[in-house]
Amino acid sequence: MQKNITLGTGLQIGGDSFVVMAGPCAVETRERLLAVADAVLAAGAVVLRGGAFKPRTSPFAFKGLGVPALEILAEAREQTGLPVVTELLDSTHAELVHEYADVVQIGARNMQNYSLLKHAGRAGKPVLLKRGLSATIQELLLSAEYILAEGNRQVILCERGVRGFDTATRNLFDLSAIPVVHGLSHLPILADPSHGTGHRDMVIPMARAAVAAGADGLLVEVHPNPERALSDGAQSLYPEQFERLMRETRIIVEAIGRRVAEPAGARA
Amino acid sequence: MQKNITLGTGLQIGGDSFVVMAGPCAVETRERLLAVADAVLAAGAVVLRGGAFKPRTSPFAFKGLGVPALEILAEAREQTGLPVVTELLDSTHAELVHEYADVVQIGARNMQNYSLLKHAGRAGKPVLLKRGLSATIQELLLSAEYILAEGNRQVILCERGVRGFDTATRNLFDLSAIPVVHGLSHLPILADPSHGTGHRDMVIPMARAAVAAGADGLLVEVHPNPERALSDGAQSLYPEQFERLMRETRIIVEAIGRRVAEPAGARA
Amino acid sequence: MQKNITLGTGLQIGGDSFVVMAGPCAVETRERLLAVADAVLAAGAVVLRGGAFKPRTSPFAFKGLGVPALEILAEAREQTGLPVVTELLDSTHAELVHEYADVVQIGARNMQNYSLLKHAGRAGKPVLLKRGLSATIQELLLSAEYILAEGNRQVILCERGVRGFDTATRNLFDLSAIPVVHGLSHLPILADPSHGTGHRDMVIPMARAAVAAGADGLLVEVHPNPERALSDGAQSLYPEQFERLMRETRIIVEAIGRRVAEPAGARA
Amino acid sequence: MQKNITLGTGLQIGGDSFVVMAGPCAVETRERLLAVADAVLAAGAVVLRGGAFKPRTSPFAFKGLGVPALEILAEAREQTGLPVVTELLDSTHAELVHEYADVVQIGARNMQNYSLLKHAGRAGKPVLLKRGLSATIQELLLSAEYILAEGNRQVILCERGVRGFDTATRNLFDLSAIPVVHGLSHLPILADPSHGTGHRDMVIPMARAAVAAGADGLLVEVHPNPERALSDGAQSLYPEQFERLMRETRIIVEAIGRRVAEPAGARA
Repeated sequence: MQKNITLGTGLQIGGDSFVVMAGPCAVETRERLLAVADAVLAAGAVVLRGGAFKPRTSPFAFKGLGVPALEILAEAREQTGLPVVTELLDSTHAELVHEYADVVQIGARNMQNYSLLKHAGRAGKPVLLKRGLSATIQELLLSAEYILAEGNRQVILCERGVRGFDTATRNLFDLSAIPVVHGLSHLPILADPSHGTGHRDMVIPMARAAVAAGADGLLVEVHPNPERALSDGAQSLYPEQFERLMRETRIIVEAIGRRVAEPAGARA
Repeated sequence: MQKNITLGTGLQIGGDSFVVMAGPCAVETRERLLAVADAVLAAGAVVLRGGAFKPRTSPFAFKGLGVPALEILAEAREQTGLPVVTELLDSTHAELVHEYADVVQIGARNMQNYSLLKHAGRAGKPVLLKRGLSATIQELLLSAEYILAEGNRQVILCERGVRGFDTATRNLFDLSAIPVVHGLSHLPILADPSHGTGHRDMVIPMARAAVAAGADGLLVEVHPNPERALSDGAQSLYPEQFERLMRETRIIVEAIGRRVAEPAGARA
Repeated sequence: MQKNITLGTGLQIGGDSFVVMAGPCAVETRERLLAVADAVLAAGAVVLRGGAFKPRTSPFAFKGLGVPALEILAEAREQTGLPVVTELLDSTHAELVHEYADVVQIGARNMQNYSLLKHAGRAGKPVLLKRGLSATIQELLLSAEYILAEGNRQVILCERGVRGFDTATRNLFDLSAIPVVHGLSHLPILADPSHGTGHRDMVIPMARAAVAAGADGLLVEVHPNPERALSDGAQSLYPEQFERLMRETRIIVEAIGRRVAEPAGARA
Repeated sequence: MQKNITLGTGLQIGGDSFVVMAGPCAVETRERLLAVADAVLAAGAVVLRGGAFKPRTSPFAFKGLGVPALEILAEAREQTGLPVVTELLDSTHAELVHEYADVVQIGARNMQNYSLLKHAGRAGKPVLLKRGLSATIQELLLSAEYILAEGNRQVILCERGVRGFDTATRNLFDLSAIPVVHGLSHLPILADPSHGTGHRDMVIPMARAAVAAGADGLLVEVHPNPERALSDGAQSLYPEQFERLMRETRIIVEAIGRRVAEPAGARA
């Protein structure tokens, strides 16, 4: 079975192509998002991430800008040529998110929200399915089946850490999930070292490790001013750190015989 | 702040009242459900549980009868006088479930499905909120805040085990959650020894333990023929085991100065 | 196979007898130990606990008084008639500890210290084997086999919590271990709600729960002045709390048809 | 503070030097050990591992050959020039193990066996300290302090996986421990992908990942005929797989600007 997924822009996910998706946790303002979009494009990202609707543990925390964020993401796509990945949090937003997103993300908290999985399965867009905090890999693959069963073959998995007992990291980043998934499934799997570690200083080494373990790409949080981010600041890279991440991971991507996917503009 | 929740039938949850909710994992047929409703009523349950819409790890497993199950539950309520608790799995069913259910259950997988929590918050019905598989108690309480923030003060928490490393039990039943919740919140908390252990033979001792730890009630799976149950058979009690559970827990309920809530008919 | 263990004083562990072992984490001074020994005897404990050699995560923490503590424990036994349980931490102390202790404790950190288990197996004294922080119940039982294989049949198991992800408690107190052990083994099993929870306010409800789950006894930390304890202060009961624990657990012990073991003096 | 440890053979551990230690779980026969020693030397290992005294969950499992194994290891060292790492399991073997071993290993089960740590601290030999199954990184570092406090500065840490909930792997290999340790300590840290995964097919990708995360070396199980190994067969590499591991990790070691340490003979 084929192991690749191809976005409308021609970007291939899986196979020998290594894709980096980057951007802020949440879209906070038009200016910040456009700035970070330019920065991640310049550094080599091929997909722009940014949350419009944010799942938050507390109902009193910042929950994203909603529809205006989707419009800002569309503007950034226009400006940079980068396809956009954003989270589908609620099935009532499904049409809206499917309209704006190039890749529809299902977050860790919703990995077993089966009704949402079915909506994503009917999106006609690739779906990025993140592993739940206490999900086994088998459970992750069975959640993917919910999407596949709707006729959508374009599922991209993502390891982002599971709940562990050591508070030295936010989550326990289970990179072994990568060879396990590759042994059991044809689906590509990305790694998210931002959530996987929760600490900016660990993101680069663990991004390198994810590449070496065989991940098909990375999902990385980058913010123009992480100290002031409205969410996930502690794990967001400064733009110059993201450049370093791209340099250091590129070396390993090439050392293991893969290639870093280039932005559509660069491919043209 | 008051610690009690009162159902329409006059049943009080919290305070010195100890409530037992029992029934099958899922409504499978009208006959089986009506039989088990009679049995749990006779043994002393005051709320009938039964799933109409079931969250299942695999898309190919039995997912409940849906609307016909809600109608069967309503018939059982009519017949027995027992109020009904059933799970709200998907916000598109919210009106329907709110119409049929006396208590709306939010399952463990959906503890952080915030859009669903908000729907439950607008139900005008008490909500039974189960702890997620890897949720901290603080996260459980913050999920309850999503419901409370919609103006619904009638939230009942439920400990049902968290993910652990020992396969001797299905989950790791964290009874310490009960005193922790009682120290931090005014909300009542039930315990579900069926999911908490996953094995029929451990349900009774752990039900007794939950009472002794201070739980405000129990949620127990009972099936007329567990060997043939379409889901959760291994952890479902035979009706005669449920009678024994009621006898053994009643002794402890009374030993610690509480009383087992009586069915509405018995109260009249 | 017989399920009871009988100490030299005639105290029976297992069967219908419910035993409470109590005392400080560590022997700190002669005065404090003798005072707490009198207090726990008065409240109904039948075995005195107290550490002479303490395993500590940091080499710079208080590690116990060593041999003088063993002598103080012997004096307390003389004074109160209570047999003594104390930890064997190092095989070089084996003869010494075997000489002074009535029950030899193997701590959680040493559950898989097989050479120490063999020394305990040759003690000719009952052994209290605590479950390791990440040990499955099967591993606990296999560690007991190391002691049994040396010809010592007097092994008492102890559930004391495993490592969990929720910092609301020090450990995740796995009371399901009690019915699991009773289903797999003839060995008695105690519960330690002090380490199981790590917080004084949770010790009493979880002690009650342990009784109700079927534990054959309790191991409880009591200190005359917990605020000043050199170790485990936060989880040590005040003597008056321990009296309350005895009253509240006695009610449940009797409700389930067992009896609280009486001190040797009382038995005479 | 210096970050390097130098063995008697001149082999440097830490700094830019990347060391690979390999060999069987246990020494089983002279012939097999000498064969595997030749094979790992040929492939590029610089330290030979092999257990003489094995900690086993069950007292009825193969527990190692004991002293004869130490003699076989010494013969293999003589033949290949490879220094030897072997486990100190019991303080009564301390003199013996210190005499034969070039590096003294403290296993995961003994990470908090403080008396053993002190014996290792007085060995006058480098100590390889493996992380316990449920140890936090802070606890690992505090266990290292027990060795350092005896005046032995030559401590090498080792990540080997912690207990997790997913049975797809034997342990949950926590590679984030590597940047965490590098941020908190001057001690070098190796990774053990054999225990970290428990499955031969995952060892190579996770070995690559460990290199990329910044590990200072690897500890790898290799057996001439893993299907017949008396312990850890499922996670032991065939010699030809180990050659591939060396080729694939070397590419990454060099890509990140380090160098694979060469055997003493090669250095001469």
